[in-house]
Amino acid sequence: MSIDRDQYLIQDEPFYRESGGEVKLFEAAYAARLPVMIKGPTGCGKSRFVEYMAWKLGKPVVTVACNEDMTAADLVGRYLLDAQGTRWQDGPLTIAARIGAICYLDEVVEARQDTTVVIHPLTDYRRALPLDKKGEVLHAHEDFQLVISYNPGYQSLMKDLKQSTKQRFTALEFEYPESDTETEIVSRETGIDGAMARKLVDIGCRGRNLKGHGLDEGISTRLLVYAAHLIQHGVEPRQACRMALIQPITDDTDIRDNLESAFDLIF
Amino acid sequence: MSIDRDQYLIQDEPFYRESGGEVKLFEAAYAARLPVMIKGPTGCGKSRFVEYMAWKLGKPVVTVACNEDMTAADLVGRYLLDAQGTRWQDGPLTIAARIGAICYLDEVVEARQDTTVVIHPLTDYRRALPLDKKGEVLHAHEDFQLVISYNPGYQSLMKDLKQSTKQRFTALEFEYPESDTETEIVSRETGIDGAMARKLVDIGCRGRNLKGHGLDEGISTRLLVYAAHLIQHGVEPRQACRMALIQPITDDTDIRDNLESAFDLIF
Amino acid sequence: MSIDRDQYLIQDEPFYRESGGEVKLFEAAYAARLPVMIKGPTGCGKSRFVEYMAWKLGKPVVTVACNEDMTAADLVGRYLLDAQGTRWQDGPLTIAARIGAICYLDEVVEARQDTTVVIHPLTDYRRALPLDKKGEVLHAHEDFQLVISYNPGYQSLMKDLKQSTKQRFTALEFEYPESDTETEIVSRETGIDGAMARKLVDIGCRGRNLKGHGLDEGISTRLLVYAAHLIQHGVEPRQACRMALIQPITDDTDIRDNLESAFDLIF
Amino acid sequence: MSIDRDQYLIQDEPFYRESGGEVKLFEAAYAARLPVMIKGPTGCGKSRFVEYMAWKLGKPVVTVACNEDMTAADLVGRYLLDAQGTRWQDGPLTIAARIGAICYLDEVVEARQDTTVVIHPLTDYRRALPLDKKGEVLHAHEDFQLVISYNPGYQSLMKDLKQSTKQRFTALEFEYPESDTETEIVSRETGIDGAMARKLVDIGCRGRNLKGHGLDEGISTRLLVYAAHLIQHGVEPRQACRMALIQPITDDTDIRDNLESAFDLIF
Amino acid sequence: MSIDRDQYLIQDEPFYRESGGEVKLFEAAYAARLPVMIKGPTGCGKSRFVEYMAWKLGKPVVTVACNEDMTAADLVGRYLLDAQGTRWQDGPLTIAARIGAICYLDEVVEARQDTTVVIHPLTDYRRALPLDKKGEVLHAHEDFQLVISYNPGYQSLMKDLKQSTKQRFTALEFEYPESDTETEIVSRETGIDGAMARKLVDIGCRGRNLKGHGLDEGISTRLLVYAAHLIQHGVEPRQACRMALIQPITDDTDIRDNLESAFDLIF
Amino acid sequence: MSIDRDQYLIQDEPFYRESGGEVKLFEAAYAARLPVMIKGPTGCGKSRFVEYMAWKLGKPVVTVACNEDMTAADLVGRYLLDAQGTRWQDGPLTIAARIGAICYLDEVVEARQDTTVVIHPLTDYRRALPLDKKGEVLHAHEDFQLVISYNPGYQSLMKDLKQSTKQRFTALEFEYPESDTETEIVSRETGIDGAMARKLVDIGCRGRNLKGHGLDEGISTRLLVYAAHLIQHGVEPRQACRMALIQPITDDTDIRDNLESAFDLIF
Repeated sequence: MSIDRDQYLIQDEPFYRESGGEVKLFEAAYAARLPVMIKGPTGCGKSRFVEYMAWKLGKPVVTVACNEDMTAADLVGRYLLDAQGTRWQDGPLTIAARIGAICYLDEVVEARQDTTVVIHPLTDYRRALPLDKKGEVLHAHEDFQLVISYNPGYQSLMKDLKQSTKQRFTALEFEYPESDTETEIVSRETGIDGAMARKLVDIGCRGRNLKGHGLDEGISTRLLVYAAHLIQHGVEPRQACRMALIQPITDDTDIRDNLESAFDLIF
Repeated sequence: MSIDRDQYLIQDEPFYRESGGEVKLFEAAYAARLPVMIKGPTGCGKSRFVEYMAWKLGKPVVTVACNEDMTAADLVGRYLLDAQGTRWQDGPLTIAARIGAICYLDEVVEARQDTTVVIHPLTDYRRALPLDKKGEVLHAHEDFQLVISYNPGYQSLMKDLKQSTKQRFTALEFEYPESDTETEIVSRETGIDGAMARKLVDIGCRGRNLKGHGLDEGISTRLLVYAAHLIQHGVEPRQACRMALIQPITDDTDIRDNLESAFDLIF
Repeated sequence: MSIDRDQYLIQDEPFYRESGGEVKLFEAAYAARLPVMIKGPTGCGKSRFVEYMAWKLGKPVVTVACNEDMTAADLVGRYLLDAQGTRWQDGPLTIAARIGAICYLDEVVEARQDTTVVIHPLTDYRRALPLDKKGEVLHAHEDFQLVISYNPGYQSLMKDLKQSTKQRFTALEFEYPESDTETEIVSRETGIDGAMARKLVDIGCRGRNLKGHGLDEGISTRLLVYAAHLIQHGVEPRQACRMALIQPITDDTDIRDNLESAFDLIF
Repeated sequence: MSIDRDQYLIQDEPFYRESGGEVKLFEAAYAARLPVMIKGPTGCGKSRFVEYMAWKLGKPVVTVACNEDMTAADLVGRYLLDAQGTRWQDGPLTIAARIGAICYLDEVVEARQDTTVVIHPLTDYRRALPLDKKGEVLHAHEDFQLVISYNPGYQSLMKDLKQSTKQRFTALEFEYPESDTETEIVSRETGIDGAMARKLVDIGCRGRNLKGHGLDEGISTRLLVYAAHLIQHGVEPRQACRMALIQPITDDTDIRDNLESAFDLIF
Repeated sequence: MSIDRDQYLIQDEPFYRESGGEVKLFEAAYAARLPVMIKGPTGCGKSRFVEYMAWKLGKPVVTVACNEDMTAADLVGRYLLDAQGTRWQDGPLTIAARIGAICYLDEVVEARQDTTVVIHPLTDYRRALPLDKKGEVLHAHEDFQLVISYNPGYQSLMKDLKQSTKQRFTALEFEYPESDTETEIVSRETGIDGAMARKLVDIGCRGRNLKGHGLDEGISTRLLVYAAHLIQHGVEPRQACRMALIQPITDDTDIRDNLESAFDLIF
Repeated sequence: MSIDRDQYLIQDEPFYRESGGEVKLFEAAYAARLPVMIKGPTGCGKSRFVEYMAWKLGKPVVTVACNEDMTAADLVGRYLLDAQGTRWQDGPLTIAARIGAICYLDEVVEARQDTTVVIHPLTDYRRALPLDKKGEVLHAHEDFQLVISYNPGYQSLMKDLKQSTKQRFTALEFEYPESDTETEIVSRETGIDGAMARKLVDIGCRGRNLKGHGLDEGISTRLLVYAAHLIQHGVEPRQACRMALIQPITDDTDIRDNLESAFDLIF
């Protein structure tokens, strides 16, 4: 099977607003081919940053949404049955190592700790991936880089990366964007006017202050964009905020009242 | 395999009585192709609403009854053995993304938290579904939308959606219909006269007041319809209520007596 | 594969003695094609009632003994490998939906809660069964009905039906038969004379009074029939009662003494 | 596949010494084709009794050593891949039901509670085994009988038969044989002289008195036979008792000293 | 498949020094074909004794290193896919029963309790192995004998043999050899001179005294042989003892100091 | 399948700086073919040492990154389906035993305790690997040696090697290199000047002092090399240290402040 490298290239520049020098830092890490861990809360733009960097560097990106059922074979590859017997099929990690892509393991902490062990030989000086089942040792393409995302808010005794995995990565930390930046993002993504975008960002900030006081996570930039979309399609702003910012994330009456009361002040 | 898109179209208008503007809100969400979460108790009409909206929008709907054994492959697809070796077969999520259907994941909280991760790339700006095992990145049809149902009453430490999933959805909340609406529904669905339908709704309201006081869930509209059906087929009303409204949902003697005593008042 | 519908028909009238109008209630539920849940203790005749009703209605019955290892595929169907590649084989639930049978899920609480989710679309107004793996939506035959049995004595935190399942059924409750009825059953099933049958029923009643006082379940009608069979084959009555009524169900010395002492009174 | 019924016949009369009328009771149960549960401690002769009865009744016996990994398919059968595609292969329970054998499920409590559910339809008036995967309902041969063994000493919260299973069986209870009977057994099985056999039985009795006082189970008849065999092959009696009666069953020094001290008295 | 019996024969006499009559006891057990359990700590020579006895008796030996993932099929056999469809392949237990080998299940307590149930029918008077999946009852070759090893130090609530398994074996108990014997073994195995071998044995004895006082197991004969090998290859004795006797078995500083201090006394 | 032995040879001398005679000790262990356990913290150079020794000895090395999902078959081999039916494929352990390679099981404690049992017969005098599924006993090539790595910091009740495994290995203990050696390594690996390398090593030492006081593991040599790489690619030193030494390994604010304060002193 020849791999279609082009389908992993980002064709159009993703809209991305830099926050604090992360572009230059990522470029340095890429230049040294160091593995990078992107840390930050849900919906703050981690995945988009990776796609933006792939576009900027002109390299393909292979994204894997990690989950607990993911086996090492799902990353590395397996034999499939064919008319002529079995045929080896590369997994996404192997594909990325072959074609020189950035391999992006999204929400890596979801994967079983021990499944993540398979990435170890790719992260040290060997840059090799043993395909045990195939009897092949794959040496990674010189353009290959490994990137993982990681939400520290999920850290728990049961689910955390092992030290021996963490010590194989450099790390970049993300937060939700500053108000001005976020207002520009919401406006630019949905076409909503700046004043309304600013109001939505204000409600988002209010929600983020409740994190740890009844909310597990703050209101993400993504949800603000959702609310703006609904308004653009004719939904009344308060109703749009209820549908996009409150009802999806909490059933707690106090939290809901708290956020609803902000509507009176802001709209 | 060419997919028979027509079998997923709703041919006849499902009977649906709107409660509070939810049709317009759903239409706005669909116009922006935002993912929608339908929240509400058992048997309040969530599934029927989705089918109604699919009919109204003229789009096919692919329904998946989620369960704990459901793997990512059950949603996405897998290779099947064929006379010519293996053949890829799309799962329901992939089918919906290809043909531009509304994909409705019913009782999504039943699915393993980590299985639900596979829907993430379809819910953000990428609207893409990586078919890792096939080495293909599927970009969703422009008509595709993702809808999930969710019963907050089931929320527990063990089974709840992850924040990173919740923050990818707008939400609509459902309750049991108002008495007048529900009376019309019971009557219209079974042909029973309005007076008797009203009596059944009264018993239903009484049962819903017991929710949290011995009943895990109230008496659903569906069970009221069952009782009306039994009466229409000649069963004495009290006996019909026992068989449809009481015996299926509780073995608690006090609750049963409480509900039975309502019969004297109502019939 | 064409399905042999005839093998699911009950050829001879099963012996069944009605207790309290349950035949008429079941007929009404069947007329409206409402799903029915049969509740009651072990060995009180639930399965036989379902077979009797199938015979009376002249409909085939497909019985499934549920167990914890039963997967959704065991109910719905799967692909089997054939000389020409894979071939779809309907599961019992699918067969019943196709040929218009009563599908009887025996001891449904044994099945994993989440496996039972697959029956949901067959129990609401859709009466449809999505065969996801086959890409087919099966609309149930108009004669199809779903019946489940359920022993409330087993109810526990770990194993109970979900409310969203319960609220899809009407329910009929069974108890052990009245003494006269049970005497007739024991006599008729085994050919034993009525006086001896009455004595066995008396011992059975005594055992049932111990339920909750050291016995998890009472002595079932089935075990009384076993004892009568042994007596008919020449075993001394006390010995027959020990072998059929006491030794199978308890190792507790006090309970055994209590029941043994009844022999002196009764024989 | 035609089944070789003859291989399941017991060719030679197994040596069996009756203890308390169990032969006649079993014959009555067989005459009525009632399912039988054989209860008793490890190594008291349960399996041999079943083989003896099969020989006496001239019926084949199919024995299954139950274990926790045993699936329903291991009992009932499965499809195997063949040159012409898949081929159905009966499991031992199905074979026994087809050829009219006694099916003996040894140590049934080891099997998963829910696997044992598959035997239910064979134990009530239906005497049928639904082969769901084959789409066939097998009606048992008229000679078929189901026998299970059960060691009450193992009973625990985790592993016990369900009441709904227990209530489908008649039961026979076994203990270790009386001293005279056991002496005869040990002597007859090994050719050892009666005096030495009696001494071994005396040690066995002493060990059984320690059951519950440091020993989980008493010393079985089987181990006494082992000791006699060793003596017959030239091992000194005390050494033979150590090797066959003490070292296999306990590492507790007190228990060992207690049993060793019996040697001085007995030899 | 014809089995190559010769590969299971021990060609050269393994070096074995008897400790306390165990050779004669094993020979008696083999003469009566009694199953044997070899008990003793890690590295005391259990496996070598079995190989020695197999060589002495001139019988083949089939060794199985037991582990928790081992299924019954791994012992008994399974169907493999072939050009002509499926082909049965005997597992090691079946092979041993067919060719009349000693089947040695090493560290049997590692295997799942319930997997070990499959050996039961081979250990009683039946000496038969039902190959359920093949529909065959295999009667063991007259030379067949079953031997298991068992380390009582591992005994725990979770992992112990069931009484019903223990009561099917005679037992031989092993300890580390006496000092003189062990000195001879170390010297003979490595070519080291007797004085140095004696010093290593002295350190070993010191380590064994710490068992239960910070060491889970004593220093095995095998590790003494390792130390001697290192010395023979030019490593300084203290360094060899550190590398072979201390660093592999403990990270506890006190224990290490204790053992190191012995070096000053002994070398 | 003929195995490509050459791909397992280390072509170029890996850069390795000896710390304390470990090269000579390993050579002695290899000369006697003793199994070796390499103990030490994450990122201290264990894997590189093994590759260096393989290069120095001129032997191939087969590396296996162990993980919890690894089955015995992943180490030993399995049957694959082929055009001509099934074909045996050696696993990495079997390959190493056949071609006379050093088999290096990296992070062996990750593997299931019971999976590691398969290496036992290769570590004692037998040097044999029973391929049960193939019916073959493989005698290891005379050049074969088994090496495992082991991080004592991970030792826990759940995950530790069994004594019966530990007692089959000699052990070498590694620590992070001395400051001078580590400075040379950092400088040599990245081309950074010695003064800057020394500063990074000083920060690393500070971090290692926090081990057990808020850090699970110290800062590894690998991370120091990462920081040097970033500086070489134009990142400001403090920023490089944040990205490579702090953010990947801790989210604790106190620890972070402590390490940040070192920057003021050192840069």
